Amino acid sequence: MSVAAERRLGMIADLVIEHATLVTVAGGTGPLRGARQADLGVVPDGAVAVADGRIAAVGPRAAVLRALSGVPAAVFDAGGRVVLPGFVDAHTHPVWAGSRAEELEQRIAGATYVEIMAGGGGIGSTVRATRAASETRLLADLLGRLDRLLAFGVTTVEAKTGYGLSTEEELRHLALLAEADRRHPVRIVPTFLGAHAVPDGFRGRPDAYVDLVVDEMLPAVATAWPGVFCDVFCDDGAFTLAQAERILRRAAALGLGLKAHADEFANLGCTALAAGLGATSVDHLVATTAEDVAVLAARGSVAVLLPGTTFGLGSTRFAPARAMVASGVPVALGTDLNPGTCPSESMPLMLALATRYLRLSTAEAIVAATRNAAYASGRGEMAGRLEPGFAADVIVIDGDDYRDLAYRFGGNPVVRVMVGGRWVAGDGVPNAERRAS
Amino acid sequence: MSVAAERRLGMIADLVIEHATLVTVAGGTGPLRGARQADLGVVPDGAVAVADGRIAAVGPRAAVLRALSGVPAAVFDAGGRVVLPGFVDAHTHPVWAGSRAEELEQRIAGATYVEIMAGGGGIGSTVRATRAASETRLLADLLGRLDRLLAFGVTTVEAKTGYGLSTEEELRHLALLAEADRRHPVRIVPTFLGAHAVPDGFRGRPDAYVDLVVDEMLPAVATAWPGVFCDVFCDDGAFTLAQAERILRRAAALGLGLKAHADEFANLGCTALAAGLGATSVDHLVATTAEDVAVLAARGSVAVLLPGTTFGLGSTRFAPARAMVASGVPVALGTDLNPGTCPSESMPLMLALATRYLRLSTAEAIVAATRNAAYASGRGEMAGRLEPGFAADVIVIDGDDYRDLAYRFGGNPVVRVMVGGRWVAGDGVPNAERRAS
Repeated sequence: MSVAAERRLGMIADLVIEHATLVTVAGGTGPLRGARQADLGVVPDGAVAVADGRIAAVGPRAAVLRALSGVPAAVFDAGGRVVLPGFVDAHTHPVWAGSRAEELEQRIAGATYVEIMAGGGGIGSTVRATRAASETRLLADLLGRLDRLLAFGVTTVEAKTGYGLSTEEELRHLALLAEADRRHPVRIVPTFLGAHAVPDGFRGRPDAYVDLVVDEMLPAVATAWPGVFCDVFCDDGAFTLAQAERILRRAAALGLGLKAHADEFANLGCTALAAGLGATSVDHLVATTAEDVAVLAARGSVAVLLPGTTFGLGSTRFAPARAMVASGVPVALGTDLNPGTCPSESMPLMLALATRYLRLSTAEAIVAATRNAAYASGRGEMAGRLEPGFAADVIVIDGDDYRDLAYRFGGNPVVRVMVGGRWVAGDGVPNAERRAS
Repeated sequence: MSVAAERRLGMIADLVIEHATLVTVAGGTGPLRGARQADLGVVPDGAVAVADGRIAAVGPRAAVLRALSGVPAAVFDAGGRVVLPGFVDAHTHPVWAGSRAEELEQRIAGATYVEIMAGGGGIGSTVRATRAASETRLLADLLGRLDRLLAFGVTTVEAKTGYGLSTEEELRHLALLAEADRRHPVRIVPTFLGAHAVPDGFRGRPDAYVDLVVDEMLPAVATAWPGVFCDVFCDDGAFTLAQAERILRRAAALGLGLKAHADEFANLGCTALAAGLGATSVDHLVATTAEDVAVLAARGSVAVLLPGTTFGLGSTRFAPARAMVASGVPVALGTDLNPGTCPSESMPLMLALATRYLRLSTAEAIVAATRNAAYASGRGEMAGRLEPGFAADVIVIDGDDYRDLAYRFGGNPVVRVMVGGRWVAGDGVPNAERRAS
């Protein structure tokens, strides 16, 4: 592999990472599918040159250094360690207050998630706690979650609303996400999830709530936050296929990108609906059939798999990931960080789950957590690869074998994190530098 | 609860931890069984007074402070956070060199653990790498693992040999464990596991290797390290029931404590054997029958469950923990830290697994990871509880709800760790203090 540089020779770099075992996930266009989902683009003894917050050159060390004009301002010796694109977490719900520890105990004792939800627990209980929380509390909790995501190597996160469930609260949560994006190094991709649950006040009248989403919330969101994604939770105890279709069609008409929670518990036909409407991603996909997989492959939506949710629920029912890869569906990963089913900020744990229970190879899982997750989040052309012109969002792990990311588990293999060319977390990075001012 | 103090009033403390939500796991004798396995002994706004490396008093804050004579040298304000006994990890194999990341990929592709072992991989490959490693390398790797265990709140660890498999190497590994015990704050309980696998040189002659264990290794171990535990791996591809019986009987005759790896993959009858011989613990217990559970309950061996191993193997076959608790078997937990099936140092992850997949309540899981694990490791009378006279091995977690230890997962809830009255890990503890000189 020769050095790839977006500038002419004589490039001036702000920083060079050298002596790295590079996992570039680079080359070509679009998410990686089928056999290509394992294409890591490993470069032994590689280097990455960073300029103006972006990757200026990447390749074998000698070639990158030859392309440099003069001495870079800073050199980081990776000492042979693996250097890869920062993780993209393709599915989170990080704006909430309160705890749902009690529900874990209820599930241990035999209650199901859908039963707990029907009894007023579940999402509804978090909505009540979140509405009651102050702005200051919500922002502090959100920033804490972003800190932990960042420490585990996440540099871009897709982040949903959905614990507001009124026009005012949903807009407030989108504003909080924008505020956190300004304050915190992690890049936030906002998603409006007004259709997360039927809130108190609409019990027994779900269509009246859908009317509110379609007639009031979506226009308000599209005006205040043009271009955000719109997501819908289509499942038993949540929204029906017909309701999901109304919401997604209205969102598309307003110019919003589409996502869906499909087949998490029951298959209501939402995968084919969302993929048919051109959804950027369809997520969860546990109760998904072979026919659904074929539709996903034909339509090109990214499948966002969330094995941490299956784990969090104490279930053994995982998404049919191998069938998806075999059919050419691009597979991505996310934590599904949320207070009910997955209170976890660890993408490395998701890699450990994805290999052991989704039966992805470690290489496939890494592609799912970087490049393909970036496409699932609408950032495929700027994040998720070490490639000239892409954001200089880079992580360094402890060790020279990328397989350690999944083989070892329960700890944190990430030793340094860079966002936009600046070290923002990890060993030897002063706390004071971790937050942008 | 009134203050419990081993000294008369007028006690002088070196340090007091105050404003803690105490989880004492204290009172009575022996491991906790049946309904009592959930007895956490929670004390709101509690305090712990430490003197001479042991717990001098514990109870409601006001009562502990009244019992003090004068001002203690140091006060730590827990700020309402949960304070509990340091975890005891009842089952680890921490002395090894090399990686078995390749085997994870083989298992993803469909190979079973027993097939990999039969093909010369598995334990045999780690034995070869470990024998080839220098003393310096082995000790450094071992200390690194102890650092991570400690950071996750483990203050006492049961640690097995078993990657030496010659008299000389097994003795060397016991000496390494003793050296690590001197150098590192974590307290190490050594176990001789010469019967971990049939090593190269004895292929097809397993009984000749058992002769070596019985006639040479065990007497040498009992002479050099009197009182250590002896363990045996009785399973398909490892040792037969008859071989396990020879080894355990000889170990008992030499005065060693007994442990066994029983029913991890196949039920060869080892649980009844080991329990009948008075084993301190019987470990794994996945393919265990109702009859075995009844024997365990009658004999009093502690059941050490290792859900991280099921996870590491990508299996969904977990030990029948609820049947054990219902039958009055004291249940303990360990990481099973090892390079093949469980490269993880996180006891909090084991709690997350134990609740979701063993169906233990969080309280039962905490008892399993502290008091009961201490009994499984022969340290039940000095570790695993906050009770006067016990070692001042204490951890502080982030938050005031003990259920967060299992509810949240994938991260590290432990913010401070004390061993023998001294803070040795966590936020605000200088690195320089983390290692004893």
